[in-house]
Amino acid sequence: MTKSPTLVGQRMAQRTGVREIMKDIEETIRTAGDRPMINLSAGNPVILPEVEAMWRRYTQALLDGPNFGEVICRYGSSQGYEPLIDAVVNWFNQHYGWGITRRNILITPGSQSLYFLAVNCFGGYDADGHMRPIVLPLSPDYTGYGNLLLSGQGLRTYKPMIDIMGPHRFKYRPDFTQFEVNEQDGAVLFSRPCNPTGNVLTDEETQRIVDTAAQHNVPVLIDSAYAVPFPHLVFTDMNLIWGDNVLHCMSLSKAGLPGERVGIAIGPEHYIDVLESFQSNVNLHSSRYGQAIAAAAIASGELAHVSATVSKPHYQRKLATLQAAMDREMPDLPWYLHQGEGTVFSWLWLQDAPITDLELYQALKQEGVIVVPGSSFFPGLTEEWPHRHECVRISLTASEEALEMGVAKMARVIERSYAAQPHS
Amino acid sequence: MTKSPTLVGQRMAQRTGVREIMKDIEETIRTAGDRPMINLSAGNPVILPEVEAMWRRYTQALLDGPNFGEVICRYGSSQGYEPLIDAVVNWFNQHYGWGITRRNILITPGSQSLYFLAVNCFGGYDADGHMRPIVLPLSPDYTGYGNLLLSGQGLRTYKPMIDIMGPHRFKYRPDFTQFEVNEQDGAVLFSRPCNPTGNVLTDEETQRIVDTAAQHNVPVLIDSAYAVPFPHLVFTDMNLIWGDNVLHCMSLSKAGLPGERVGIAIGPEHYIDVLESFQSNVNLHSSRYGQAIAAAAIASGELAHVSATVSKPHYQRKLATLQAAMDREMPDLPWYLHQGEGTVFSWLWLQDAPITDLELYQALKQEGVIVVPGSSFFPGLTEEWPHRHECVRISLTASEEALEMGVAKMARVIERSYAAQPHS
Repeated sequence: MTKSPTLVGQRMAQRTGVREIMKDIEETIRTAGDRPMINLSAGNPVILPEVEAMWRRYTQALLDGPNFGEVICRYGSSQGYEPLIDAVVNWFNQHYGWGITRRNILITPGSQSLYFLAVNCFGGYDADGHMRPIVLPLSPDYTGYGNLLLSGQGLRTYKPMIDIMGPHRFKYRPDFTQFEVNEQDGAVLFSRPCNPTGNVLTDEETQRIVDTAAQHNVPVLIDSAYAVPFPHLVFTDMNLIWGDNVLHCMSLSKAGLPGERVGIAIGPEHYIDVLESFQSNVNLHSSRYGQAIAAAAIASGELAHVSATVSKPHYQRKLATLQAAMDREMPDLPWYLHQGEGTVFSWLWLQDAPITDLELYQALKQEGVIVVPGSSFFPGLTEEWPHRHECVRISLTASEEALEMGVAKMARVIERSYAAQPHS
Repeated sequence: MTKSPTLVGQRMAQRTGVREIMKDIEETIRTAGDRPMINLSAGNPVILPEVEAMWRRYTQALLDGPNFGEVICRYGSSQGYEPLIDAVVNWFNQHYGWGITRRNILITPGSQSLYFLAVNCFGGYDADGHMRPIVLPLSPDYTGYGNLLLSGQGLRTYKPMIDIMGPHRFKYRPDFTQFEVNEQDGAVLFSRPCNPTGNVLTDEETQRIVDTAAQHNVPVLIDSAYAVPFPHLVFTDMNLIWGDNVLHCMSLSKAGLPGERVGIAIGPEHYIDVLESFQSNVNLHSSRYGQAIAAAAIASGELAHVSATVSKPHYQRKLATLQAAMDREMPDLPWYLHQGEGTVFSWLWLQDAPITDLELYQALKQEGVIVVPGSSFFPGLTEEWPHRHECVRISLTASEEALEMGVAKMARVIERSYAAQPHS
């Protein structure tokens, strides 16, 4: 018999909704047997041959060079592997003119770990016992934000405005008539490009959020897991916004290194310092092999080049395939894809959907197509909102053939559901 | 200007005593210029050529094999890389007869991270607002335990008994007249072998601690960072104690992989489950390259073999050198080395020391010798106890020549200090 764990233990042992779904998906695929399944749910990026080859080359160079022992057989600094820090500093100073130094960088074991540190450093209870909430300015957003805060519920999430952008296309916008940041808030957090929607908040929207938070000296954590300059899974114009209250949270997971857990924080020294101390207590420092090959690939410019010329066009092609298939297969129903501005996902909204996202997930599963139901991607949204149950996330990691076939099957299921319960 | 961080932020931003010292040491070495410094402070293990060569070979094999892309270019499971889990299960079933399964294993990014997860899962405030303390049965112990608990002070630490084992030799023993575990306690935690002392709690002592905790269903976390079967930095008999309330916390940092952060927890399924969930929220999963080469080196038996035949004798020789030099250089003063039973450290106690450990540190620094003052290694000990200021930690990672020279210089400093303030 186990003792009941502590408060932290209880909270952190929670498996969020999406993890239950992911387990169901794994189980479904594992037990499918001979039945062919079209998996449009994956978050695991495709292994692109050019990307794998690049990391192999840098690994071989590390093995052949004089630093191998120093890298893997030695402890490192909590801040990160110095050559990686230098490579990041040089890159952003050269290409973005940020004028940063080593003291503006922290390497973490993946960006999830970075959010964990930052959210609990800036959000949660303060010394006076007041909760400092984490503010999500635009819902839906990454489901993993829902389970970061050690002190439990402390998210304040804003519903978006919906802009219809054309036939079967829409875009979420921050609702600036509602959005506010207060003195007491812990931090603002959002992904840009956004997982799950593929939305990229415009430069103006981003700047407005940053400025609003800056008025009260509240940190803004920008999840740049898909952003420029790497992995560069961005299909629209976007600039990175620098600010004295902005922490850019980058990741190399979508640049071919998910296994190695390399997160990069770039921000003001007073944020980096406190996060570094926290990190040294939580995990000493990040693994160094991934840092070492990343340092070389960033310094040479190859990572940015491969990202822009291989990874980006790969997912852009997949998106075009999906969009064309959807337009062809379901011309007459009230569905909308979110503008595809980045990430490895597309986000489908069925207006006035006759069945919920979970029912659609189950119905699609019966037809051998797996998507991720959208309702888990509204962490912290307490308000009832039918839209929440009208969306699914479609992964662009499948082959073009699988996307075509998946959409065809999906179209039949969706048609049937609207036909059975026509909306008024 | 920064907002003051949250409670968690404040606590985790603390740099513990030993980190200030470590900074001072780094600074001292960096600014030494031409002055030769004898560094007897390092926790960074020596890169042993055979050990580095082994990790190089397994890395080359990974590069040449079919799994490289799957390992580094894919996300993994929060529990760990399956071949590593299997290798650990097989090893402990074959050599220890534990009858464990995959569900008894969790891989973490280093053992520091494992302690962070476990201490905060089992210790800290519970749902009723009661503190569940972490119990350290034998002080001194690893300094890093002092800053793990998110909810702040919550350690209960026991002073040891001191056994004089011979001229200039002693051993700490748990004081079972004092030690107790209560229903309300969160977990018991100790290192075996012990950093900083090189002590190995006997099998009987360990079993008694485990049994005492088991009466109240309290988990016992055994820090096995230096234990058998790898890195096998153990110079005495020791058996691993299995129990339904025991979590073995292993690390590959002293087996040549500190850079890669590989921690291995082995314990009952109900502990592993909750730690795995927590881990997935904190950092998704551990880096996979280190896991992959470790899996191969454990499965082949080479890691255990190299640990026992290369690493262990290396540090055992260093210890013998240190002991002989101490005995030769300071025959007549009341100093004691802790029994050297394991780790990469030796622990010197100056009985009725005329100067504190910090003063000794400073005096030695003037002579070009760096040790770590011992007073930071009593986390959670609130009682005043002169012994706490009478010890220093000496690293066995230095060369034999450096150890000899270091001891000679140390002896002169210690002689002078006793001569200036003779003890009564």
